[in-house]
Amino acid sequence: MTTNPPAELHPDVAVLAPLLGTWEGEGTGEYPTIDDFSYVESITFAHVGKPFIAYTQRTRHPETGAPMHAETGYLRVPRPGSIEIVMAQPTGIAEIYEGAVVGGDAPLVIDVRSTSIGSTTSAKEVTITERTISIIGDVLQYTFRMAAVGQPLQHHLSASLHRT
Amino acid sequence: MTTNPPAELHPDVAVLAPLLGTWEGEGTGEYPTIDDFSYVESITFAHVGKPFIAYTQRTRHPETGAPMHAETGYLRVPRPGSIEIVMAQPTGIAEIYEGAVVGGDAPLVIDVRSTSIGSTTSAKEVTITERTISIIGDVLQYTFRMAAVGQPLQHHLSASLHRT
Repeated sequence: MTTNPPAELHPDVAVLAPLLGTWEGEGTGEYPTIDDFSYVESITFAHVGKPFIAYTQRTRHPETGAPMHAETGYLRVPRPGSIEIVMAQPTGIAEIYEGAVVGGDAPLVIDVRSTSIGSTTSAKEVTITERTISIIGDVLQYTFRMAAVGQPLQHHLSASLHRT
Repeated sequence: MTTNPPAELHPDVAVLAPLLGTWEGEGTGEYPTIDDFSYVESITFAHVGKPFIAYTQRTRHPETGAPMHAETGYLRVPRPGSIEIVMAQPTGIAEIYEGAVVGGDAPLVIDVRSTSIGSTTSAKEVTITERTISIIGDVLQYTFRMAAVGQPLQHHLSASLHRT
């Protein structure tokens, strides 16, 4: 397969440039139906010159290093100030998110809510998900809120990562 | 981040072992609303010891090498003979597929149909998708059928790849 030189970032997703690269850090999770937990996390945002950013993420147990969660997807900016995220999860969940992005001269802040959550037959019920992602300097922070398994929308995850 | 030694394949997804690795090859596409096209493709299936297989794919123009399509997701085997696929596409589509898997002593064949297709506001309309994936020896073949943009369900893509 031909390999081209590194592509220029597509102008549609220029506002997302601060995401690009690999991030590592730690997070914590809580939910009424499970014990509190913590994790170490690695996130990569990449692009190929097309109008989207590719996202992959993995978390591991902070002591054993055993793999915990993973997810993967794409970010789109259909018009300035708006963002769409398409996400696949190995738990059997496929999410569509829409919301707002601010950036440019200000710190990057992405704030999205699920507009569609597809589930496989064997997946747990997840009805609403919300994510807020911010970058200030070389620190990426996110929070994740979720309504699932009969519980109302509430805080589930937060993490802070540094650019590697 | 701690890195563990390579994990054993989870027994739930043992039937999918022939997928694991990287595949390269060529495909062709057609649909009533567009010109016929061809592409070169690279597919990777990987695992971390948990009960799912991670999937990533990229296609490129056969002459210029320019990136064309990409997609990413996960495969699950909730019970013997059944398969679930969760897929994110940078076109703004998130799909849930369910269907059948046969393998073991026979060639691996996966045959799935969409049970849920989520779309971002800016995505084109896709209403039904079907995929058939087979492996015979070191050759992976797939076909993709789609009902989209007002057209009935019909053949869209086929490709043949070799294990690298």
